[in-house]
Amino acid sequence: MDRERKLAQAVEGILDSYRRHGNINHLEATALPSRTRVTRLLDELMHLVFPGYFGEENLDELTSNYVVGDRCARLFRDLSAVCYRAFRVQDQECDSAQRRDMKQRADEISIGLLELLPGVRDMLVGDVQAALLGDPAAASAEEVILSYPGVQAITSHRIAHELFKMGVPMLPRMMSEVTHSRTGIDIHPGATIGASFFIDHGTGLVMGETTQIGARVKLYQGVTLGALSVRGRDEARGKKRHPTLEDEVTIYAGATILGGETVIGRGSTIGGNVWLTHSVAPGTTVVLDTPSLLFK
Amino acid sequence: MDRERKLAQAVEGILDSYRRHGNINHLEATALPSRTRVTRLLDELMHLVFPGYFGEENLDELTSNYVVGDRCARLFRDLSAVCYRAFRVQDQECDSAQRRDMKQRADEISIGLLELLPGVRDMLVGDVQAALLGDPAAASAEEVILSYPGVQAITSHRIAHELFKMGVPMLPRMMSEVTHSRTGIDIHPGATIGASFFIDHGTGLVMGETTQIGARVKLYQGVTLGALSVRGRDEARGKKRHPTLEDEVTIYAGATILGGETVIGRGSTIGGNVWLTHSVAPGTTVVLDTPSLLFK
Amino acid sequence: MDRERKLAQAVEGILDSYRRHGNINHLEATALPSRTRVTRLLDELMHLVFPGYFGEENLDELTSNYVVGDRCARLFRDLSAVCYRAFRVQDQECDSAQRRDMKQRADEISIGLLELLPGVRDMLVGDVQAALLGDPAAASAEEVILSYPGVQAITSHRIAHELFKMGVPMLPRMMSEVTHSRTGIDIHPGATIGASFFIDHGTGLVMGETTQIGARVKLYQGVTLGALSVRGRDEARGKKRHPTLEDEVTIYAGATILGGETVIGRGSTIGGNVWLTHSVAPGTTVVLDTPSLLFK
Repeated sequence: MDRERKLAQAVEGILDSYRRHGNINHLEATALPSRTRVTRLLDELMHLVFPGYFGEENLDELTSNYVVGDRCARLFRDLSAVCYRAFRVQDQECDSAQRRDMKQRADEISIGLLELLPGVRDMLVGDVQAALLGDPAAASAEEVILSYPGVQAITSHRIAHELFKMGVPMLPRMMSEVTHSRTGIDIHPGATIGASFFIDHGTGLVMGETTQIGARVKLYQGVTLGALSVRGRDEARGKKRHPTLEDEVTIYAGATILGGETVIGRGSTIGGNVWLTHSVAPGTTVVLDTPSLLFK
Repeated sequence: MDRERKLAQAVEGILDSYRRHGNINHLEATALPSRTRVTRLLDELMHLVFPGYFGEENLDELTSNYVVGDRCARLFRDLSAVCYRAFRVQDQECDSAQRRDMKQRADEISIGLLELLPGVRDMLVGDVQAALLGDPAAASAEEVILSYPGVQAITSHRIAHELFKMGVPMLPRMMSEVTHSRTGIDIHPGATIGASFFIDHGTGLVMGETTQIGARVKLYQGVTLGALSVRGRDEARGKKRHPTLEDEVTIYAGATILGGETVIGRGSTIGGNVWLTHSVAPGTTVVLDTPSLLFK
Repeated sequence: MDRERKLAQAVEGILDSYRRHGNINHLEATALPSRTRVTRLLDELMHLVFPGYFGEENLDELTSNYVVGDRCARLFRDLSAVCYRAFRVQDQECDSAQRRDMKQRADEISIGLLELLPGVRDMLVGDVQAALLGDPAAASAEEVILSYPGVQAITSHRIAHELFKMGVPMLPRMMSEVTHSRTGIDIHPGATIGASFFIDHGTGLVMGETTQIGARVKLYQGVTLGALSVRGRDEARGKKRHPTLEDEVTIYAGATILGGETVIGRGSTIGGNVWLTHSVAPGTTVVLDTPSLLFK
């Protein structure tokens, strides 16, 4: 029949296209860390740092040892498998000795992350407190943890950043993208963020790979901490391209701060929609000069 | 084995961290209204206000009574359970008499919301109509209901706002965050919004808790209706901190309007990227004076 | 019992509201293309254009023919069913001959899209390459495909745009909204976009129905390519209302370009936050004149 023949031809056309464009296929290649899997991993890690908040299970004195032990054991296996896949994709021609090394590194990273989680939780205590202090509409720590996109974003970032520092390819960026998809907040896993950090609302916030942020910093929706225009991709890689914010800086909605040598001094306040490409001294307040408005 | 020992140590470290930071745990405490459950509740409520739009089931004259009755009965139970959890979290030391009271209030709120849904639907008829009139690309009411983030956001808000007015803790804010995650539109459940409301596109829109909006208002993406800088959290709580928009106001993309005493008079138009912290009289058009551009 | 009676009354109130507001119901009407189904369709299409990237299945030389054939056959059926529903909703009074015609058109469109996918993949090769060249933080094609919202958005758009051109109602807009929900990038399926297109970050980007974009164009987060204020809905429909960007144009974060007669000439650069409602000649750089900042 005509329809059958056309379908067969369409399938053949697609298979043929797979043969032509190797670089956007992963047919014969190593299995990739799939997005579904990374999403599940991130969710499990969120459960682990905020126990009792996201799941339906009951945790109490009697059961928590087992529930947490079981969760950690599963996470260890899953995270290690995803890390291994990420290493393999980077180096697809590796021999069996190299593969054994990769497997071992993946195991070490996986245990390593679990060991770092208590430290991550210490930081998150401060972040939740900062949200409670920073937003008059915040009613309780529970509300903040369950419903503030900024808290979700910094939690995900503090975890992804540890994996980034341990040199895991792809996975940290995939985690940050899952969180961006959920919150509208786009933080590169390479960014370094100090204690007691708060993002209010946050949709549209962009923070680049080499951003450095001190303690007690507060950012609003639509803030960009970005790079100045890039000439060559290769010349830019590895350099500090994004700003530094010292302690106690506040940046209001829609402000854009660009450049790797731009330093916003301690305690400064940057007003809404300000566009800055140079440093300001500690304690400075920068606002747009009353923009001329026409009233008709 | 070494790996086993390390895993056991990591688990012990995490359990130890749970003991240290009580305020970001819900181990021994009352079960929280989980995000998964709240998402399901909101989806069921969306089904109920727009029957036949989101689900796969068949609704017709013969079956709709049963389908709708069944959906309402399940919603009654689920909503009541989540409300009860939300009350419990607020007051964890309550005795059994207080718990019985909470259970009864949760039941009343749950029935109460179902009773309010026809009224919510009356408002949504006007909102769908406003979207059809406001966007030349809109092809049909079906398209608008199925694919306009602004319609999804106002639907979710009109439901969450009723729960907010009935004094349910946490749940309304969690609903608005589920919708923010899906649409990029961040409306606090406390905001009061009049009839025939339309948000076009909407990503990045932020509307604060004490905002008041009249009838036939139209907002675009990236609009902020926010608070002026907050000095003390406690001094700000409960006060009107966000603007008032009277009837037939239009606010274009990226405009920021701040302050609890700021009133945008009836029929006014606020241009894109305008930054306003004071009131304007009815019928005013405010635009940025031609911003100086450099052409090189 | 009182509770039972109240629940029954609430159900009756909701059913009564369904009878009153026909235009926001789909009770007796044709089944709609549900959002759940459209999401699944889009995911299947993403699998097909980037094989091995999103799913968990193993694809290799031996199995890929069968896996791909099976996927195409299922897609053919599902897409045809959704297209048929979309046609039916447009014309609910149709007779059985018209319904047979609709069914056949739906089949043709469904095969037609499968036939177009190799061409879509040819375009995507250039888009992935553009992302790799445009972002110094991009580590590999794999990372770009798996975690860049801009790549996800253009992939979804190139598919939805084909369905739009074939005249399928509702479905293309629903696909673009699923992607907007995931990425914060809001591209109308009607927009025409040339080769090697790159969106960096992208949250808050809005691109209208009649936008025309050349080759090697680069856009950042928060860019609006929109319409000038619309007087009458009907007078605006079908006209070119959104801008044209010629080849090799770059538009930085937060810039707003409006109007159907606005043409940004080849090779031009538009700076961050610029607001433009008229054309600029090829090779122009437009930036905000140093906005006056107050330092306190």
